[in-house]
Amino acid sequence: MKKTLRELAELVNGQVEGDPSIQIEGVAPLESAQPGEITYIKSRKYRHLLETTKASAVITPVQVESAQKNLLWTENPQLAFAKILSLYHHKPSRPTGIHETACINSNASLGSEVSIGPFTVVGENVSIGDRVAIHAGVFIGDNSTLGEDTVIHANVSIYDGVTIGKRVILHSGVVVGSDGFGYVRDGDGHFKIPQVGGVTIEDDVEIGANSTIDRGTMGQTVIRRGVKIDNLVQVAHNVVIGENSVIVAQVGIAGSSRIGRNVILAGQVGVADHIEIGDKVIVGAQAGVGKNIAPNQILQGSPTMPQRDFLRSSVLIPRLPQIKRTLEELVKRIEALESKIGK
Amino acid sequence: MKKTLRELAELVNGQVEGDPSIQIEGVAPLESAQPGEITYIKSRKYRHLLETTKASAVITPVQVESAQKNLLWTENPQLAFAKILSLYHHKPSRPTGIHETACINSNASLGSEVSIGPFTVVGENVSIGDRVAIHAGVFIGDNSTLGEDTVIHANVSIYDGVTIGKRVILHSGVVVGSDGFGYVRDGDGHFKIPQVGGVTIEDDVEIGANSTIDRGTMGQTVIRRGVKIDNLVQVAHNVVIGENSVIVAQVGIAGSSRIGRNVILAGQVGVADHIEIGDKVIVGAQAGVGKNIAPNQILQGSPTMPQRDFLRSSVLIPRLPQIKRTLEELVKRIEALESKIGK
Amino acid sequence: MKKTLRELAELVNGQVEGDPSIQIEGVAPLESAQPGEITYIKSRKYRHLLETTKASAVITPVQVESAQKNLLWTENPQLAFAKILSLYHHKPSRPTGIHETACINSNASLGSEVSIGPFTVVGENVSIGDRVAIHAGVFIGDNSTLGEDTVIHANVSIYDGVTIGKRVILHSGVVVGSDGFGYVRDGDGHFKIPQVGGVTIEDDVEIGANSTIDRGTMGQTVIRRGVKIDNLVQVAHNVVIGENSVIVAQVGIAGSSRIGRNVILAGQVGVADHIEIGDKVIVGAQAGVGKNIAPNQILQGSPTMPQRDFLRSSVLIPRLPQIKRTLEELVKRIEALESKIGK
Repeated sequence: MKKTLRELAELVNGQVEGDPSIQIEGVAPLESAQPGEITYIKSRKYRHLLETTKASAVITPVQVESAQKNLLWTENPQLAFAKILSLYHHKPSRPTGIHETACINSNASLGSEVSIGPFTVVGENVSIGDRVAIHAGVFIGDNSTLGEDTVIHANVSIYDGVTIGKRVILHSGVVVGSDGFGYVRDGDGHFKIPQVGGVTIEDDVEIGANSTIDRGTMGQTVIRRGVKIDNLVQVAHNVVIGENSVIVAQVGIAGSSRIGRNVILAGQVGVADHIEIGDKVIVGAQAGVGKNIAPNQILQGSPTMPQRDFLRSSVLIPRLPQIKRTLEELVKRIEALESKIGK
Repeated sequence: MKKTLRELAELVNGQVEGDPSIQIEGVAPLESAQPGEITYIKSRKYRHLLETTKASAVITPVQVESAQKNLLWTENPQLAFAKILSLYHHKPSRPTGIHETACINSNASLGSEVSIGPFTVVGENVSIGDRVAIHAGVFIGDNSTLGEDTVIHANVSIYDGVTIGKRVILHSGVVVGSDGFGYVRDGDGHFKIPQVGGVTIEDDVEIGANSTIDRGTMGQTVIRRGVKIDNLVQVAHNVVIGENSVIVAQVGIAGSSRIGRNVILAGQVGVADHIEIGDKVIVGAQAGVGKNIAPNQILQGSPTMPQRDFLRSSVLIPRLPQIKRTLEELVKRIEALESKIGK
Repeated sequence: MKKTLRELAELVNGQVEGDPSIQIEGVAPLESAQPGEITYIKSRKYRHLLETTKASAVITPVQVESAQKNLLWTENPQLAFAKILSLYHHKPSRPTGIHETACINSNASLGSEVSIGPFTVVGENVSIGDRVAIHAGVFIGDNSTLGEDTVIHANVSIYDGVTIGKRVILHSGVVVGSDGFGYVRDGDGHFKIPQVGGVTIEDDVEIGANSTIDRGTMGQTVIRRGVKIDNLVQVAHNVVIGENSVIVAQVGIAGSSRIGRNVILAGQVGVADHIEIGDKVIVGAQAGVGKNIAPNQILQGSPTMPQRDFLRSSVLIPRLPQIKRTLEELVKRIEALESKIGK
């Protein structure tokens, strides 16, 4: 594909500084870009790199200047770059049509231009929206729903009664709708509480490989619009994750906790059950959240504390032996003083 | 389905306070229950909620009184509720019969009323007990055994030579019998130690989505009767987990460790290799177990300490900067004193 | 199978002390070995156990003596044992030939003696080397490559454009080539950065069950020769793991971090993004790596510190309440002294 720099500028609401008629054939990082390609710098402080890249054009913040390069000025160069990359990127392959081996219940409802890969199972009363792509080896249980333009990668398992919105992406190995982890003590053993609820995944959610979303015990586990979940994340029964929140790899969220909007949980964070985390909270990697968190806090540590406290106190942990020695020395010095002048 | 309150009371060995002949058509949580439904309160302290629920009957602890509601008195309301919920709950769908696409070795042995979903593979000499349900896309390696009434969800992988008991539930994406992680240093590289042992999963075990149970290097990895394992848990080679223990999501147990009976390992706990954890131990979330634990202890922290110590010391971590400042101030004050009166 | 002790000694470059003509029929651990079997002791300090084992021969370090047992002296008994175990071990079953249900694109290229199990999908332009074994339910996307003698276990998902070397083992549920976790803020939501890179897995790598390896955003995620990865490990986009490094279960490595050669990351370690870890570094379990690590360090803790500091300081954490009490007492005693003699 070829586009002129002017066409690309229009796509991202940017402004050309240089020759708008040059042809751009590809997209690449700064270091490896070749003539004919476009690249980007994230902020002004990298503008010296304009001299060394071989790219024919560079997306930059506005007001950046270059004697040699054609520039595309924009408010958010990274976003513009991502959009242009999407344009040039050869889309990964997807199944074409309904594969003859797919096992689709006669009471399932399929929209137009749906594609389904080999060895995929679609249960009774499943409803699949237009242009949905389901790869090979996927299982979709009875009474589940997939909205338009959703993509389900190979070997995903969706249990019965799961509702999935539009433009959702589930990566390989994701499990949605497995039983929540609930038992009642019954003598020596554990009586299984039937997990009769469901899962609702709203529009524009992406869930990474091998993550697991349990169904509600009663009621729903809910992943709201625009939430992005990384790989190997555990979301327990009846959890609600608010709009546009970001859940990084290997996070675990225990039962019935409610995560606000625009929250970021960094990698390997654990959230106990029945916790409320307010909007726009950021929780640092490996933190353990055992108490509710008010909105707009930045926390870290296990148990969590304000990140500022975490940074200040964690440098003192390795100095604890020194602190203890100093303390013991002081005790002796005070005893010496006391023995001289009395308590 | 409809049952009278008397019938439900008999099911759970409870006692009716009110009208035993009322018909109960459903089960719901306190807040959302409607007329015709039954709900429960867990303990006496919630008895004021009896006035506000719309439910026609409420399961309560004995001696709770209500002027308006029909009550079902029982020692353990949560257990009674779970049992009644099981009765009313529409069972999730399961395969019916042996699907024509399933690939079953002619030397496999199938009990009566076995159901097997599409695209499932059953290896040579596999033995499957009566009423076992195996969903779609499951792989069962040669010489493995599944006991009666076991349920294997979609896309589970069971390697060769795995023994699984009765009434076991394996959720989607579970892997049982993969090679343990064992190598011997050989020059610059690693020589793989053949993993020639197996896995034994006893009766009434449930294993959550995408958890992994490695086979023994030699001998068996053993999950004893009644153990409940949540999602994304790692159980390494030659681990033994004692009866009725509960392993919460994202726990990792390293090779050859032995977990006692009725142990609880909370979320994201890590257990080092060759550790022994005694019966009835409780390990708090994110703890790191690097030493043996005697029975009946409650521990937390990484490395673990008694939970009481953990709670007391962890509140002091954020105060370390203050402790250090106080200490430095004391040093100066003592120096001042010493300079006045001599050491 | 039977081999003489002399034949086994030749296999491992060892030396027989005793009868080289005895027949060895099997291999077992010290405690359970029976007559006719061979076992091993790892070091001299276990030589007293030679008296109690029933094994007919024992692999030992050189110079160990025994009046009763036939010995096989070798520099590295554990390595010799592993090699002999490999010899006797009945290899786990593998598919034979290409199963008739496998769905193989007509433009895929298959080497000689390739075996492919039921319900496996091989995409367009996939290249599969000689003697590769692919189990059931595997998905291999277009333009991927598998080198000679590689083994892919059941229900693995390999996306498009993944390059896998020779003698690689991927255990069940592994996902390779899923999209990296990259977005750009776009108003309230997140714009997905297309993940157009790939994954390169070099020769002799083994990856444990349900681990996930994301593709590069641009460029490659690289797992170098001889790396061993345990179960449930997360490797993010553009990570590079150096030769022969060992990554234990549930480790997470964030985007663009570079792990050196012969590194060991113990269980549940987290590595932040854009980190460099030098060669031969060892990071203890549950550590959180937020800064670069120079070669040859042994670190632990979250955040990491030298392991020696970690061991010394972590025993003081439970004593923090005592430290605080001592400090408060000293404050009072100093105040008393000061009030007597003035500051």
